[in-house]
Amino acid sequence: MKNKNVPRLCVSALAFALAAGAAPADEIAEYMDFFEPLPYLPPIPADNTMTPEKIELGKMLFFEPRISASGVISCATCHNPALGWADRIPRAVGHGGQVGERNTPTVLNSGFLESQFWDGREPDLEGQALGPIQADVEMNMTLAEAIERLKEFDIYHEHFGAAFPDDPDPINQDNVAHAIATFERTLNTPNSPLDRFLRGDMQAMSDSQVEGMKLFVDAGCVACHNGPALTDSNFHRFELPGSTDEGRFVVTGDEMDMFAFRTPTLRNVAVTYPYFNNGSVADLHDAVQLMGQQMLGQDFTDTELDRLVDFMHALTGEMPRVEIPALP
Amino acid sequence: MKNKNVPRLCVSALAFALAAGAAPADEIAEYMDFFEPLPYLPPIPADNTMTPEKIELGKMLFFEPRISASGVISCATCHNPALGWADRIPRAVGHGGQVGERNTPTVLNSGFLESQFWDGREPDLEGQALGPIQADVEMNMTLAEAIERLKEFDIYHEHFGAAFPDDPDPINQDNVAHAIATFERTLNTPNSPLDRFLRGDMQAMSDSQVEGMKLFVDAGCVACHNGPALTDSNFHRFELPGSTDEGRFVVTGDEMDMFAFRTPTLRNVAVTYPYFNNGSVADLHDAVQLMGQQMLGQDFTDTELDRLVDFMHALTGEMPRVEIPALP
Repeated sequence: MKNKNVPRLCVSALAFALAAGAAPADEIAEYMDFFEPLPYLPPIPADNTMTPEKIELGKMLFFEPRISASGVISCATCHNPALGWADRIPRAVGHGGQVGERNTPTVLNSGFLESQFWDGREPDLEGQALGPIQADVEMNMTLAEAIERLKEFDIYHEHFGAAFPDDPDPINQDNVAHAIATFERTLNTPNSPLDRFLRGDMQAMSDSQVEGMKLFVDAGCVACHNGPALTDSNFHRFELPGSTDEGRFVVTGDEMDMFAFRTPTLRNVAVTYPYFNNGSVADLHDAVQLMGQQMLGQDFTDTELDRLVDFMHALTGEMPRVEIPALP
Repeated sequence: MKNKNVPRLCVSALAFALAAGAAPADEIAEYMDFFEPLPYLPPIPADNTMTPEKIELGKMLFFEPRISASGVISCATCHNPALGWADRIPRAVGHGGQVGERNTPTVLNSGFLESQFWDGREPDLEGQALGPIQADVEMNMTLAEAIERLKEFDIYHEHFGAAFPDDPDPINQDNVAHAIATFERTLNTPNSPLDRFLRGDMQAMSDSQVEGMKLFVDAGCVACHNGPALTDSNFHRFELPGSTDEGRFVVTGDEMDMFAFRTPTLRNVAVTYPYFNNGSVADLHDAVQLMGQQMLGQDFTDTELDRLVDFMHALTGEMPRVEIPALP
């Protein structure tokens, strides 16, 4: 999906603007080839068509706290739209104030990920959606109870019927998962400074951000953080100081997966702190430094860190404008 | 603020439309005189001017969970915009999953109330706003800690500065209260069927709702439920079966106030279930029947109940459209 012509044309203008001493246009263009603009929508699975009715229902369910045992916890509690669709605390707080083991990942752009959860234990959003409802430290409700609660409301009969018109008994767990996943696939953040830069607006990133982009490539960050969401959706061993979380090993039992986690998306990383599987690192400079040390075996200088962090800020896109639904 | 001319003119049209057998126009007009349309804004206190900057800051604070001990509870947790700005559970669930003693009142139209909380222990929204932050069963944070947390964010320094430009040290508890109260005064629900009916649209209420309105007056409900928010903001003894809550007595120590609660607003009553101080009554028919028995000494017939409940539905106004703020 890369259009190399547009950036190259504009790079000439940038080279002119930067005058002598700046990076040659071709060099910047080569760096740009490592990145892809974020599409407005992620891939839509063939067995879960995106329809307005399903998006609307999914939005209602996403904000619905009655499918939690306490009646006050919804998907939006931890995936809070006010907080980058995450929670900005180290580890999720759920049912009865219990603190979970891991940091809440943002749902923003999660449709671009090729597996879900830190340990990738579900392949897609449909698989992910039902987990937190049932987890005893999150919403703590059986799916059977959740379905019963939803059936109490006439308006849910209407909305499930509209979203799944061929299903004679549409209020069921598969459809809950399909609707939530469909809504989540609309929660994308296009038009970040990087995206606009890649599309040819050479003023969209600052000079420091451009330097950060180059360093991101040269240092090797891009080896794992690539693709539209800046993740390879693959698993890499990472020993976070203080963390005993065995990561993907818990899922596969394979020693090779011990302490391995799926590469997180870097989209909106500046507004989805704190970082890592247990959220123990609050500052983006510290997070970048730690990644350099652990994954690349190098200590970034303060200048390098500043540039990389500046580049991270260029990954903050337009937040989805979601109107809070009126629930029954 | 009543304009009797407009309704009277239109009442003639209704009488024509209803043809023979319907209530005479003058009779309906007399009933209408017991009610007032809801203004778009409640009274604004002289010491807390409403400005766009203060509204915006108040909105941020209303959605801000970092001023709770857990980091996940905000005003919007219990006063959930998706749920009529209340929580639709019997009693509020707060810090650590603790269940409070009382039902969460909606913040909708709360600026029209002449006292706040079920027991009226605060005179205004400025007084109310800081209570839930500190309550150990709600957000469980000292105001000193809350202020410190807010001060960690540059954007709050900007927003408090813009909202309180004459204050050299604007991030303080008084300003938190003033900003939240200002935002809350924007959360009103004008243009309900009753409001449109009172303004002359005689088709805005159904025949059954008009009959319910008349019964509401004739039975005496309007003695306490009057004014723009359909509450006298006064305290009345009410012995709810199963409740041991001493109500306003806890505030005043006056035996006259034992089991007394402030008359709740009936605005949006159909979407702010469950009812009464402990939320023990989920169904609006049951709530109306109980009020008839306890406060008026009468058992409504099923037909009367249906009409009164239909009229209650005519009190649901336009919900405020609030965009979820992006918090730092």
